[in-house]
Amino acid sequence: MTENIECMENMERIGTQNRRTEIEVTKLSDYIGELVTLHGSIYKIRKMSGFSFAILRTARYTVQCVCDRQEVLGQLQEEACVELTAEVVEEERAKAGAELHITEVSVLSRPTAQMPIVMNQKLIETSLENKLDYRPLTLRNEKERAVFKIQEGLLRGIRYFLQAEGFTEIHSPKIVYAGAEGGANIFKLDYFGKEAYLAQSPQFYKQMMVGVFERVFEAGPVFRAEKHDTARHLNEYTGVDFEMGYIHSFREIMETETRMLQAAFELLREEYAYELELLKVQLPCGMRKTGVEEAAFKPLHQEYADAAGFEIPALKFSEAKALLREHSKGTAQADSKKESHDFDPEEEKLLSEIIFRETGSDFVFVTHYPSDKRPFYAMDDPENSEETLSFDLLFRGLEITTGGQRIHDYEMQVEKMKNRGMNVEAFESYLMMHKHGMPPHGGLGIGLERLTARLLGYDNVRQASLFPRDIHRLEP
Amino acid sequence: MTENIECMENMERIGTQNRRTEIEVTKLSDYIGELVTLHGSIYKIRKMSGFSFAILRTARYTVQCVCDRQEVLGQLQEEACVELTAEVVEEERAKAGAELHITEVSVLSRPTAQMPIVMNQKLIETSLENKLDYRPLTLRNEKERAVFKIQEGLLRGIRYFLQAEGFTEIHSPKIVYAGAEGGANIFKLDYFGKEAYLAQSPQFYKQMMVGVFERVFEAGPVFRAEKHDTARHLNEYTGVDFEMGYIHSFREIMETETRMLQAAFELLREEYAYELELLKVQLPCGMRKTGVEEAAFKPLHQEYADAAGFEIPALKFSEAKALLREHSKGTAQADSKKESHDFDPEEEKLLSEIIFRETGSDFVFVTHYPSDKRPFYAMDDPENSEETLSFDLLFRGLEITTGGQRIHDYEMQVEKMKNRGMNVEAFESYLMMHKHGMPPHGGLGIGLERLTARLLGYDNVRQASLFPRDIHRLEP
Repeated sequence: MTENIECMENMERIGTQNRRTEIEVTKLSDYIGELVTLHGSIYKIRKMSGFSFAILRTARYTVQCVCDRQEVLGQLQEEACVELTAEVVEEERAKAGAELHITEVSVLSRPTAQMPIVMNQKLIETSLENKLDYRPLTLRNEKERAVFKIQEGLLRGIRYFLQAEGFTEIHSPKIVYAGAEGGANIFKLDYFGKEAYLAQSPQFYKQMMVGVFERVFEAGPVFRAEKHDTARHLNEYTGVDFEMGYIHSFREIMETETRMLQAAFELLREEYAYELELLKVQLPCGMRKTGVEEAAFKPLHQEYADAAGFEIPALKFSEAKALLREHSKGTAQADSKKESHDFDPEEEKLLSEIIFRETGSDFVFVTHYPSDKRPFYAMDDPENSEETLSFDLLFRGLEITTGGQRIHDYEMQVEKMKNRGMNVEAFESYLMMHKHGMPPHGGLGIGLERLTARLLGYDNVRQASLFPRDIHRLEP
Repeated sequence: MTENIECMENMERIGTQNRRTEIEVTKLSDYIGELVTLHGSIYKIRKMSGFSFAILRTARYTVQCVCDRQEVLGQLQEEACVELTAEVVEEERAKAGAELHITEVSVLSRPTAQMPIVMNQKLIETSLENKLDYRPLTLRNEKERAVFKIQEGLLRGIRYFLQAEGFTEIHSPKIVYAGAEGGANIFKLDYFGKEAYLAQSPQFYKQMMVGVFERVFEAGPVFRAEKHDTARHLNEYTGVDFEMGYIHSFREIMETETRMLQAAFELLREEYAYELELLKVQLPCGMRKTGVEEAAFKPLHQEYADAAGFEIPALKFSEAKALLREHSKGTAQADSKKESHDFDPEEEKLLSEIIFRETGSDFVFVTHYPSDKRPFYAMDDPENSEETLSFDLLFRGLEITTGGQRIHDYEMQVEKMKNRGMNVEAFESYLMMHKHGMPPHGGLGIGLERLTARLLGYDNVRQASLFPRDIHRLEP
């Protein structure tokens, strides 16, 4: 063509080459006797007499290297980024059944300062606050980072499950015109001169999308301006929300969650064995089968042989309260709390303990929460308007899910809002879906950090957030 | 056990039942002669003489139903949610090769008002603003919602690809202490008395995480307080960001993106044929092979037979500018723009057109952007410090990606910041990673809405955002 100028003729072509060099360290023994090239950071150096051990940290694993060449040894330094060539040598004492004997090393970059914190030991021995202050460094610790591989695995399992079940993944706005959960714990924002808020949940949008796709889910940030400074609260966390239409009972939501959790744990067992072993994680137990006492406490994955599958016990809020009263009879606590329409953290713990003892289950659903403690969109129980068709899921002593059936009828929704003294007109764009036809529906929200923290047995949910945000912490 | 009280004995067990009833409408002809039960919304009713057609909208499909029973007909209403039982009858004129003859219907809910907008025709004939005002309703249109199935498919393809390539998915905070991209277009927030911002990108965090996992990605909201009111800008969009360590050249980032896009389009072709057909989408073309003129313009998926794979042409920013000058010689535009260090929208369009004509490719990489137009973390070209090792990807006339290699050396980064008059101390937590060792790395960010909009041939990016946010729009 006449329009060609020189640069067109010499134009580069960006194709589809693949240059990854990492070998799977768990399969290192497949390479015994071979020369391999791989890259990573020098995690730890241990000088012996006449040689050194150097632990290489790769994208997912750590691998033991041996180096006895002086010209190579002189180059090694902790947290240097390197490419190395090495022979794979059988070594029974090494975790992978083999180790690497370094023959060549090329240093790509070096740290310019001493580490302000020792991060390459088995445990980082310092306060949580200190760990979080140095998060970009402390996450390089193999156990610290494994937490977030497990978190990745949980969400992958959840996604695979929901997609297979016909849920469509959506992305709803985080800058919103109204808070879905009400209350004061909402961040305000100036939006080109208008007052806007950060979404406390994708509640309104996922409901709207049930009118479009029947079943939807979202995994994204949610924001709560809670001033609580506790081990259970974050001001920004990753919410995993789903919402499903055409339900016949709110129990279907709980059944779906049960299967979803089972799928997520199964994916962990299959693909994250390295991290589960590193962190000594015990996968959770479901409810033991009726009449099968000896099956109690067996790990989830063994249940797969069982046609009945994983089960989670469920009891009503009022029954749970009664159970708690029974257990704390005679204590001062019992009397002061019996009128509360919610659980406090101690009650959640105690309830989980009782249920675990009685049924073997690490989880328990609590259903039929009192209406006055649930949001305006919660469906009241037609048999008792003081209670809602709602539930929480407790996992090893901590609430990780809130869910329930929503009101789908326009008149019913407007009436409930009026009874609560809400300004119905302010919710016109929310109520549009009810006015023009919605199926019976419901859903839930899970806190991904809470799920991760309880799975790993951490008391503080911050340990399961990469860069947590709390009332005192905005950095890093 | 002695602690048992009555409610424990009657405790419910939430198991793993599955009650989905939807049949895949694309396979309807497999069920000919059978009675099926399914649910959905009545999308459209067309009265004929003696019977009616009713189009049922299910979670993903629409299906033609025929109804001639008076007692059933009387129940049907557009946007009513129903469960119905029907016989599958062969019908060549129906899209699925069969239609449903309704025998029973159960109405689950009814709309309480007339639709304010006609949303069940092939096209919704109204302004974009109107469509967006009624978004919870207009998204029920089968073509409108198909846009977001395709968007789902793109992100699924991207995720599968990145996971297979060893990238770890992360969740970084959206409330941040400093903006990564600089400039005035940042939303401010009061964070318990401190000034905070909404993240313009996960840039700082994904770099930190390269020091941890080598390769990471994130798909999440990003916020830009741009006052531009254009068809190309959103104030909140879904950013797909990845960052990879141990690169030898910034071209590896472009190669990875090329393969990633190829994987995403391939997944669409395999799993979203229904929506691609509904929206008449032409999957994009790569560069035609040298000397294979007749291969020009062939759709991407046919290229799979080709060992060389999909290729995208790349040219330098300065070359692209020269090419554009060549093409607009003698016009007034040419002279006024030749000094600009960026492209304007018309230039992006023209450049894409030229490249398409010359190479057959719907995409073009532009590399080596001038340093003064790129952020402080961009790596300058060691051969020419006026240029950066960076790139944009244009797709059918619109920039959809910005990426490049980042500075990994601490001294180099600090020097560049000082040269720009930045307060280095304010970035202490960002610079921690550089100080303590980072591999050579780089990455990119894609705007998911822009990618979707260009794939579908939409001029306005709002059409590819479920609930867009712009300077005038905060609702619904």
